[in-house]
Amino acid sequence: MLLDNISSPADLKNLSFDQLVSLAGEIREGLFNRLTKKGGHFGPNFGFVEATIALHFVFDSPKDKIVFDVSHQCYPHKMLTGRAYGFFDETQFSKISGYSNPDESEHDFFKVGHTSTAVSLACGLAKARDLKCQNENIIAVLGDGSLSGGEALEALDFAGEQNSNFIVVLNDNDMSIAENHGGIYKNLKELRESNGKCASNIFKSFGLDYIYVDKGNDIPSLIEAFQKVKNIDHPIVVHINTLKGCGYKPAEENKELWHWTAPFNRQTAERPVSNAENYNSMTAEFLLKKMAADSTVAFVCPAVPANFGFTKQNREKAGKQFIDTGIAEEHAIALVSAMAKKGTKPVFGTHSSFIQRTYDQLSQDLCINKNPATLLVNTASVWGMNDITHLGIFDIPLMSNIPELVYLAPTNCEEYFAMLDWSIEQNKFPVAIRMPCNGIIHTTEPVQKDYSDLNKYKITQNGSKIAILALGDFFQLGEKTADYIEQQSGQKPTLINPRYITGLDKELLTELKKTHEKIITLEDGILDGGFGQKIASFYGSSPVKVYNFGLKKEFLDRYNAQEVLKNNHLTPEQIWQDIKN
Amino acid sequence: MLLDNISSPADLKNLSFDQLVSLAGEIREGLFNRLTKKGGHFGPNFGFVEATIALHFVFDSPKDKIVFDVSHQCYPHKMLTGRAYGFFDETQFSKISGYSNPDESEHDFFKVGHTSTAVSLACGLAKARDLKCQNENIIAVLGDGSLSGGEALEALDFAGEQNSNFIVVLNDNDMSIAENHGGIYKNLKELRESNGKCASNIFKSFGLDYIYVDKGNDIPSLIEAFQKVKNIDHPIVVHINTLKGCGYKPAEENKELWHWTAPFNRQTAERPVSNAENYNSMTAEFLLKKMAADSTVAFVCPAVPANFGFTKQNREKAGKQFIDTGIAEEHAIALVSAMAKKGTKPVFGTHSSFIQRTYDQLSQDLCINKNPATLLVNTASVWGMNDITHLGIFDIPLMSNIPELVYLAPTNCEEYFAMLDWSIEQNKFPVAIRMPCNGIIHTTEPVQKDYSDLNKYKITQNGSKIAILALGDFFQLGEKTADYIEQQSGQKPTLINPRYITGLDKELLTELKKTHEKIITLEDGILDGGFGQKIASFYGSSPVKVYNFGLKKEFLDRYNAQEVLKNNHLTPEQIWQDIKN
Repeated sequence: MLLDNISSPADLKNLSFDQLVSLAGEIREGLFNRLTKKGGHFGPNFGFVEATIALHFVFDSPKDKIVFDVSHQCYPHKMLTGRAYGFFDETQFSKISGYSNPDESEHDFFKVGHTSTAVSLACGLAKARDLKCQNENIIAVLGDGSLSGGEALEALDFAGEQNSNFIVVLNDNDMSIAENHGGIYKNLKELRESNGKCASNIFKSFGLDYIYVDKGNDIPSLIEAFQKVKNIDHPIVVHINTLKGCGYKPAEENKELWHWTAPFNRQTAERPVSNAENYNSMTAEFLLKKMAADSTVAFVCPAVPANFGFTKQNREKAGKQFIDTGIAEEHAIALVSAMAKKGTKPVFGTHSSFIQRTYDQLSQDLCINKNPATLLVNTASVWGMNDITHLGIFDIPLMSNIPELVYLAPTNCEEYFAMLDWSIEQNKFPVAIRMPCNGIIHTTEPVQKDYSDLNKYKITQNGSKIAILALGDFFQLGEKTADYIEQQSGQKPTLINPRYITGLDKELLTELKKTHEKIITLEDGILDGGFGQKIASFYGSSPVKVYNFGLKKEFLDRYNAQEVLKNNHLTPEQIWQDIKN
Repeated sequence: MLLDNISSPADLKNLSFDQLVSLAGEIREGLFNRLTKKGGHFGPNFGFVEATIALHFVFDSPKDKIVFDVSHQCYPHKMLTGRAYGFFDETQFSKISGYSNPDESEHDFFKVGHTSTAVSLACGLAKARDLKCQNENIIAVLGDGSLSGGEALEALDFAGEQNSNFIVVLNDNDMSIAENHGGIYKNLKELRESNGKCASNIFKSFGLDYIYVDKGNDIPSLIEAFQKVKNIDHPIVVHINTLKGCGYKPAEENKELWHWTAPFNRQTAERPVSNAENYNSMTAEFLLKKMAADSTVAFVCPAVPANFGFTKQNREKAGKQFIDTGIAEEHAIALVSAMAKKGTKPVFGTHSSFIQRTYDQLSQDLCINKNPATLLVNTASVWGMNDITHLGIFDIPLMSNIPELVYLAPTNCEEYFAMLDWSIEQNKFPVAIRMPCNGIIHTTEPVQKDYSDLNKYKITQNGSKIAILALGDFFQLGEKTADYIEQQSGQKPTLINPRYITGLDKELLTELKKTHEKIITLEDGILDGGFGQKIASFYGSSPVKVYNFGLKKEFLDRYNAQEVLKNNHLTPEQIWQDIKN
């Protein structure tokens, strides 16, 4: 195998074009091997094999620096930079991450997993190069989907004013995760259709030079283009037209499905399908019913529709009541705020990790204006996504300290949908809901329908001495802990479902003082700036002892949830151990 | 006066063009009256008088909806919508805010003060209109400076795909607060110079229709253009070329100085100049010295250079070591992260209120990558800016709960510069510094130079029973409180300067338990998610009592700092009263 003799990109330089084409085949075999067995990003990597080979053939990494946007297309790059073992050797899969990672290689410069950051980061490398009077090439690799994100557009504007070497490779496969949305994409289409020659050119209007490569999966064409721009003395965009999923027919034909894949059968393209209930499809089903009954209900989603059950079919059902903003989280929050202001009923949804983009919009556009939009926060949990760039454990400190926001933590399926229904129909508060992430847990107890009497916690079990405030996804841990403590101590603890992350039930907390000596708080997120610390502060001057349980403030990476829970003393046994003395 | 008969825009409709011109004169008189006496945004309002008149002449507010970006150009709009008293009657100045405000008028739709939000908010109104099958005009008014902000660009992209009425008025005065930065501005210049006819057109490349009005301060030209686009069935940009500060020569000639003004003398254009020391100019002076000694030191600032002492003269002195990203806070954080990665020494600076834009970049681009950039956070205090949209009291919960960030709170001038110097020269941590905001306080005590031994608090007075942890700007309140308590109780309390917002000195806190019964924490920001609650959590299970003092989680507006402090029990007397029992 050619790859056996490539330990760094320097080893590519002497290969013939034919050998480079064979190399592309080998890289795809590596991708198949890892992705069929472990899963991961499929379409982006298959589409960018040739471009990666051409980049490393022309440029001199790591002196020349390639920064990947999102970096979910960097698997071929990993194979050419000494990490082929992570693809061909199943025992070593876990040694490499699914994203660029400077801990793995000197050819990676940043840990990246969010979109739209590469141009900014590359601008910083270029600025530093210029301040140090050095002269390497700086290359940002950006997908067309990422182009709509504010940070990418800000950076292109900045780049357009610079006067030194800077190369943006726009990997245009005409897809985001789902289809693209936004006016920019009409321009990209025009550019593709005119072979880069149409008058209107977004990159030129940002002040950047521009060339177009129609055959974005053809190594010689790409090499020619990259050689043309190597050592250029000003910023330029190399717009390459690639095929997402290139080299695997099912993926070329259904790009959305094959953006990311679980392990699958290469021959049949089949993946294990789960028919189990899940919150994504249940949420879509619920919202579609609301939409059918009320034409002012709308679901607004920045580019992750399927993660809320809005598959292509459901998007079509929703019609104009489904709005994909493209990757544009900031815009989406302001959008729903204004929609709510004008009396419609917008529901916004994204992941805990991506809502991080919107603090200012949550505060300024939404909460200062107190507009009654609903926000769904998905995978907000230790059981959410577990890459360092996709953690769902920071949204409580991020969001719950913003005035006027009502942030709700449902503890089971029925409570989640009751809260969602209430939020859509009320017109007083901006409301966010932390979607459950610990499996579908049903209750047969009656569930409250109206949550407008803010910050009323619910006692689900009356006891004494010890009270457990078990928030959201950790309510079941609270139940188990209550049982365990009763078993061990013979004393029944009080169990409370706080429901509201954003406020204290001071009346109930004051009442608890009379008959309780110890308060345990449990929350599915980091402790710093979170829920439990507010309870500790409330009881700070009283004799009541407070024990906050949750996660340590740290960037976890590719963790095992059970281990993390144990390390943070989040089992009933450990909790009892910690508090009993 | 014509204005006397205008209680709403409807009253404008029957005026002749000549009368409209007179009206513009009257509006400028109102602006002069308020701004000479009270100060406020000057250039944006003077430049937008004619456009405001034309908008209200053509469109039917409040049915047609005008959304102002930043809304620092909405004073003329306020005068035409029943609020002229707020400009002509000094006793009523304080009844109106300096920004759009739905509490004041049905012609204002949002409380807005940050840039780049208008297109998004207007898109939301348009979407809601379409869902409700209504048909009014939706107009976003956007300044050229705001155009570079990610949220605005995301929104333009979104708007470019819509198929219904939507009008963006681009108020192009060729200035941000300071000069514009970014490639987009080359295109705006081309458009102005070609009378809107050049081939490259950023708005068309975003999918929007476009017309250009060269005489942006000429009422008939503006009316003609607005009439052309009224009731249009698709999105369009009306690009108007206005003169910032139009109607006052000194402001036309020095646009940066007259963006905002303190009260001034209309005849002489003089303002009271303070020669007192201030942190802005001292910071610039310090950084310029560092830059002169080391060509890899750079100051990166998103469009607020003067607020860090980088006046035009100092920007020229700094040369390529000063980088204005334009309004692009997200990009700026990623930029400095990458600059630090490549071994240069970037310092970023903006206001507490604007750093809110960057949570995701702080977390992903900077802290996950642990790059040693320095961030300066200005007006982060109850003594900072006091409009609801510009509060500086939320940055501690926002920033201090991000892993890996070292957030420092200096307590005096010497400590601030020592921290800044250390941060620039170290290469281990991303560091943010909360710039002092309570006046220039000097110390004669020796100040620590090295802060790399993280989270070591400093005992500045040894005492017993009571310990006061007084963070940053509230350290002097801590000193006063310590004195007062000693006076009242005869017992000297311990006084501690925590210095580090982002971590606990567990050793010291544990030691305190032995000889102290009560811990007081003081912080200049909201309590929720902040510093004190972490201390309360630390002591939660111990007999030590903790009393957290700081601000309530709320959106304050145009407040008096002394009153707010009192309402939050932040005087030595109140603190003693609260803790003595």
